[in-house]
Amino acid sequence: MTETLSDRRTRLMGPNVPTFYRIPVHIIRGEGIWLWDAGGKRYLDCYNNVAHVGHCHPRVVQAICAQAATLNTHTRYHHDLVLDYIERLTTTFDHGISQAILTCTGSEANDIALRMAQAATGKTGIIATDATYHGNTMAVSQLSTRKPPIGGRWPNVRLVPAPDPLATPDPDGRLFAGHVRRAMAELSAAGFGTSALLICPMFANEGLPDLPASWLAPTEAALRAEGALIIADEVQPGFGRSGSHFWGHDRLAFRPDIVTMGKPMGNGHPVAGVATTPAIMADFRNAFSYFNTFGGNPVAAAAALAVLDVIRDEDLQENAARVSAHMLNRLRDLRHPLLVDVRANGLFFGAEFQINGAPATRFAADLVESMVRKGFLTNVIGAGRHILKIRPPMPFSIENADMLMDALTRNLHETPVPA
Amino acid sequence: MTETLSDRRTRLMGPNVPTFYRIPVHIIRGEGIWLWDAGGKRYLDCYNNVAHVGHCHPRVVQAICAQAATLNTHTRYHHDLVLDYIERLTTTFDHGISQAILTCTGSEANDIALRMAQAATGKTGIIATDATYHGNTMAVSQLSTRKPPIGGRWPNVRLVPAPDPLATPDPDGRLFAGHVRRAMAELSAAGFGTSALLICPMFANEGLPDLPASWLAPTEAALRAEGALIIADEVQPGFGRSGSHFWGHDRLAFRPDIVTMGKPMGNGHPVAGVATTPAIMADFRNAFSYFNTFGGNPVAAAAALAVLDVIRDEDLQENAARVSAHMLNRLRDLRHPLLVDVRANGLFFGAEFQINGAPATRFAADLVESMVRKGFLTNVIGAGRHILKIRPPMPFSIENADMLMDALTRNLHETPVPA
Repeated sequence: MTETLSDRRTRLMGPNVPTFYRIPVHIIRGEGIWLWDAGGKRYLDCYNNVAHVGHCHPRVVQAICAQAATLNTHTRYHHDLVLDYIERLTTTFDHGISQAILTCTGSEANDIALRMAQAATGKTGIIATDATYHGNTMAVSQLSTRKPPIGGRWPNVRLVPAPDPLATPDPDGRLFAGHVRRAMAELSAAGFGTSALLICPMFANEGLPDLPASWLAPTEAALRAEGALIIADEVQPGFGRSGSHFWGHDRLAFRPDIVTMGKPMGNGHPVAGVATTPAIMADFRNAFSYFNTFGGNPVAAAAALAVLDVIRDEDLQENAARVSAHMLNRLRDLRHPLLVDVRANGLFFGAEFQINGAPATRFAADLVESMVRKGFLTNVIGAGRHILKIRPPMPFSIENADMLMDALTRNLHETPVPA
Repeated sequence: MTETLSDRRTRLMGPNVPTFYRIPVHIIRGEGIWLWDAGGKRYLDCYNNVAHVGHCHPRVVQAICAQAATLNTHTRYHHDLVLDYIERLTTTFDHGISQAILTCTGSEANDIALRMAQAATGKTGIIATDATYHGNTMAVSQLSTRKPPIGGRWPNVRLVPAPDPLATPDPDGRLFAGHVRRAMAELSAAGFGTSALLICPMFANEGLPDLPASWLAPTEAALRAEGALIIADEVQPGFGRSGSHFWGHDRLAFRPDIVTMGKPMGNGHPVAGVATTPAIMADFRNAFSYFNTFGGNPVAAAAALAVLDVIRDEDLQENAARVSAHMLNRLRDLRHPLLVDVRANGLFFGAEFQINGAPATRFAADLVESMVRKGFLTNVIGAGRHILKIRPPMPFSIENADMLMDALTRNLHETPVPA
């Protein structure tokens, strides 16, 4: 008897290891916006933000190969590349953010950001939304609802209701600010005080709500009034994905104190980071002697530099803006009895399905399954897992968008509507 | 005016960023056991365990390049390489350890291991030694003394006195077991109970004490009696470094429940992991839906597989054993008024210096500085930072050992003895 790949995974990795799709795909090759499985079937990648500039981009691969063959050490020795990268990276920030620590994962970056906020404010309370995910360390997993922490949530954590304009209209952000103010009052009464609010500037996991610029202003004012900081988790919005801006926080027009980055940064090479102001960096660096062996090593820096080069040279931010407008038009042309809203934030799209006013979770899941069978990789977001999530690599073209939308239009009507 | 590299680092990375050596070295190229700085000076690498099979080993570089050009995704899709790697890795373990989670850093691995122990035992107390370092996350940094956590240590952590046979003889490990038993009693009285003892099986940061096999048996019995687990942090001892065994815990002859790995695993590529029994893995996986985007990706798995291939094909464990014996003989020939002990654990060596019975911290630091000026990279370990640390890449040869020892013999007598 041949052991199936699923059985082999369970034997070697244990139970409950997450995969995508009811019959997981077995991908063996990637190029640009295309992936191929072991049977030779081709998939249009409408999901992966890790391969930000396209799978196996030759310039990134070449940068990794050349540096891996020359030197790969760590930042306890001097090296130019990590400095060249932080210099390039920080020129993309306003708001006085000019320094960074490089790590290997977004989880590590958020784990540092929480401690930066605590070191800078002297307080320990943390606020996030109730439908988010910021990473997998013991500390950062305190902020997850879908993956609640082992042993229960720490008492210094408050999760506020995520923005959901369809269910609870909040056009100027005052409702959200009220939630944050209440959480701050609770944290203050409990003796923790508030160190920071940690949010994704496009609230991607929450469902990609359509929010106007300055929507966060009342929240920002409430936080500033108590000396609390704002941490922008740019793992999903950053590096040009929002199209109109390089960073999601600039699109939503708020001033973060700390910015964390991850997945797209090295196009799959494990690179992540946290950037902040010199004052906050000094508070952290003087409170804790942080060192990350692999963080900012020469190969990681070379990969990350190549990603910045490709974004610039291939006009990928501009492409995101252009394809975003086209995709949104095509999404708006969709007609389906369960479809209640479509929205875009650059090269990130949501299509929300409800049935009798409730999340159409099953329908959205069935739709994703039918799309993967047809060769299109998508997924779902939102607390109800009922919003189709489309977040392709950045070179996704108008032609790719039309292929996707043609398939989606057909599949939408072939997917059974639950009774 | 030209900005110095040190100034540029401070401007871009902030203050208090750790470097080695009073005048940091600026390394730009590596090959095997050699590193070159920007001025063309060559250094014999007697320190770096990250480049486990040698800097820029062509087989590891080739594996990274080939896979990076083919596919780099994540474990939410099926892929053979991560399974091939875990299969190869876990065949090196006894004690029923047959499953693993791959991460990017040893810190992430230890962060998971702590939660595995908590999920498996239902208790939250953690014990480590008082002169150790296991990583940089908010949770794992609770276990460090040299880098104490921001906001103070959690109440569920106990740090017991590290073994130090010179200062406090403990030939059969009963003294250490008594410390652990006392810590367990305290954790029990405080309502936490003990989930695990986390140790490096060669107590490397503690000073590499010379401990006989089964030295940990009384401690192990005390832990088992209360249902507590043992986590072996194999970041330093593992992958054949100890010479006599592939893993440090097998050399010290105890049974770990959880093994964590890091630095040497991918020869510099960010790969790390945590291995355990199916029962403990199931307890963790059912309590927490862990996913690490970059962990176990195809490129990381390819790099790690190549490292295992090279260790086997170049007989690096056998080399460690052979060079260890030669180095120890040469270390024993050293004569110096401050030198009180020399010891080896495979390809890891300590030479301890004391002055009037106290740690000769300044002398050890001066010796390290004089060695780097002569082109030999070493460092110090021990709570008193007074033990010369020699931990070269695994291809370190008898000839390299003689070069190092000839230089050390000369430098020892040229380094001023503090009054």
